[in-house]
Amino acid sequence: MALLGAIEAGGTKFILAVCDENFNIIDRTVVPTEDGPTTLAKVTTYFDQFDNIDAIGVAAFGPVDLNPQSKTYGYVLDTPKPGWAGFDFLGYLKNWRDIPYYWTTDVNGSAWAEYRHGANSEVKSLVYLTVGTGVGAGIIVNGQILSGFGHPEAGHIIISKNPKDHYLGHCPFHHDRCLEGVASGPAMEDRWQQSAKELADEHMAWEIEADYLAQAAMTYTTILRPDKIVFGGGVPHREVLLPLIRKRFAELMAGYLATPDLEDYLVPVANGDNAGILGCFYLAKSAMTRA
Amino acid sequence: MALLGAIEAGGTKFILAVCDENFNIIDRTVVPTEDGPTTLAKVTTYFDQFDNIDAIGVAAFGPVDLNPQSKTYGYVLDTPKPGWAGFDFLGYLKNWRDIPYYWTTDVNGSAWAEYRHGANSEVKSLVYLTVGTGVGAGIIVNGQILSGFGHPEAGHIIISKNPKDHYLGHCPFHHDRCLEGVASGPAMEDRWQQSAKELADEHMAWEIEADYLAQAAMTYTTILRPDKIVFGGGVPHREVLLPLIRKRFAELMAGYLATPDLEDYLVPVANGDNAGILGCFYLAKSAMTRA
Ligand SMILES: Nc1ncnc2c1ncn2[C@@H]1O[C@H](COP(=O)(O)OP(=O)(O)O)[C@@H](O)[C@H]1O
Ligand SMILES: Nc1ncnc2c1ncn2[C@@H]1O[C@H](COP(=O)(O)OP(=O)(O)O)[C@@H](O)[C@H]1O
Ligand SMILES: [Zn+2]
Ligand SMILES: [Zn+2]
Repeated sequence: MALLGAIEAGGTKFILAVCDENFNIIDRTVVPTEDGPTTLAKVTTYFDQFDNIDAIGVAAFGPVDLNPQSKTYGYVLDTPKPGWAGFDFLGYLKNWRDIPYYWTTDVNGSAWAEYRHGANSEVKSLVYLTVGTGVGAGIIVNGQILSGFGHPEAGHIIISKNPKDHYLGHCPFHHDRCLEGVASGPAMEDRWQQSAKELADEHMAWEIEADYLAQAAMTYTTILRPDKIVFGGGVPHREVLLPLIRKRFAELMAGYLATPDLEDYLVPVANGDNAGILGCFYLAKSAMTRA
Repeated sequence: MALLGAIEAGGTKFILAVCDENFNIIDRTVVPTEDGPTTLAKVTTYFDQFDNIDAIGVAAFGPVDLNPQSKTYGYVLDTPKPGWAGFDFLGYLKNWRDIPYYWTTDVNGSAWAEYRHGANSEVKSLVYLTVGTGVGAGIIVNGQILSGFGHPEAGHIIISKNPKDHYLGHCPFHHDRCLEGVASGPAMEDRWQQSAKELADEHMAWEIEADYLAQAAMTYTTILRPDKIVFGGGVPHREVLLPLIRKRFAELMAGYLATPDLEDYLVPVANGDNAGILGCFYLAKSAMTRA
């Protein structure tokens, strides 16, 4: 039986999994993220159990080099994470087993899973926004993962400071100028001196968070005109948030530009916490036909 | 001799032109923009002079329907402009002469010309931002004009109000929340009670304008990672502006993300005021091969 592999390479843990031809998960494990070589040794040991893997999809925390023309294609780029900057992630895997790989970012993997989830729908362009320890987005435009001079870092767009918010910001580069600086989980915790998980539904924190995420939705909408914006990551687990985002988005847009109905447009993840792994499987499959 | 046609359909004037196979302009005229049928009658009368036009590229002021699956494909959509809302622009032309047309927005036409200008370069993705009576952008991603649920209206992205700026904004929908509201030519004139053309180089107006345009460049950069951002339209004619934008962009980004060298990245138009017409010719050519 032919198998596909998935490596969801996160900053704190790696999720490894194998599925059959129908994308049913047949095995799955989690290894903690250490330095590059140590972690990858565990990854390859895991996949050594399966000698019939046709292809592997890899969705890695960034920044990574996605440009096939680049000399450092497949490398992890400049990152403060010990033992990762300049590590040849994809090269390590190819050296272990020379099969087709699909190499992309973690958010691109999840975006692809959300896009494929609605594969028979009218959705051709989609933004997957994750709001967790960091804020990032995977973007699909007309069925293609968007990439350019590098991959997007769409958590670092400019926002307008909410007048009720006096927090100085959490982005090491842009402080309170960018979305990540004011809207990530750690920004919320730092601002309110309380974990986002523990903030009451009535706390003004949610109104402010919704304002920032609605601003982001407006900026993505005017630039990309996607068919859907999906909110993933830890913070949007809070059910109070999405209705507030839709309300604020409607106020901000003020009737400008047609969008799908907001209930279908600004939505929670369809694949839950499996989005990353599923995206890797789908991408592994497409790496096979490409090869 | 086979010819190509161009219709640059602006809100105040239409530029009509014809070129030969090598994209040399052989004739050109300008007609004022009246209502839809009146203006289009003049357009077809002009092109009646040439019986050997293979294809025409049309770059129209928006909003227009660019979705070939839509029942109103080729129409001008909701606009306050008298005699245009719901006008079947493309249908009128096809009814006149059934040749291939490339139908797109004015900014997409100019973006395509700027993209083609560097056709043999490394530029695969490009943003053409026009700052004039309105603010708008045409976006090329990996050699394709970006479009989704509708065409981008990337002049209406969220900006952060400059602390020195107390102007209430010029966008009828978003006031001072969006780029167009604070950075268009009329916004400058309204704020300073003086035409942008007449403001001295030393006026603080330029520092504020550069702040907003640098913010826009940061947002486009983090979402799209283009190879180039081109500044067109009336306001960037002022030579004081671009160096200020580059300086402010570097401050805002604070070393985050690789971009091309800023001298090659944030640039004035390469095609000057011919960008719109040239884009139409190139697109007309591609409509022929598509047909
Ligand atoms: N149910 C929840 N409600 C609000 N915030 C949450 C919730 N779950 C996680 N978070 C916040 O999300 C952040 C972690 O993000 P998460 O997406 O879970 O992981 P990571 O980004 O590290 O992969 C933390 O700051 C945490 O406070
Ligand atoms: N040289 C210039 N310097 C500064 N502003 C200019 C200049 N030329 C035109 N503008 C401003 O640009 C606006 C007109 O934009 P333009 O791009 O020329 O036309 P349109 O957008 O109508 O096609 C006006 O508000 C005008 O003040
Ligand atoms: Zn940032
Ligand atoms: Zn606006």
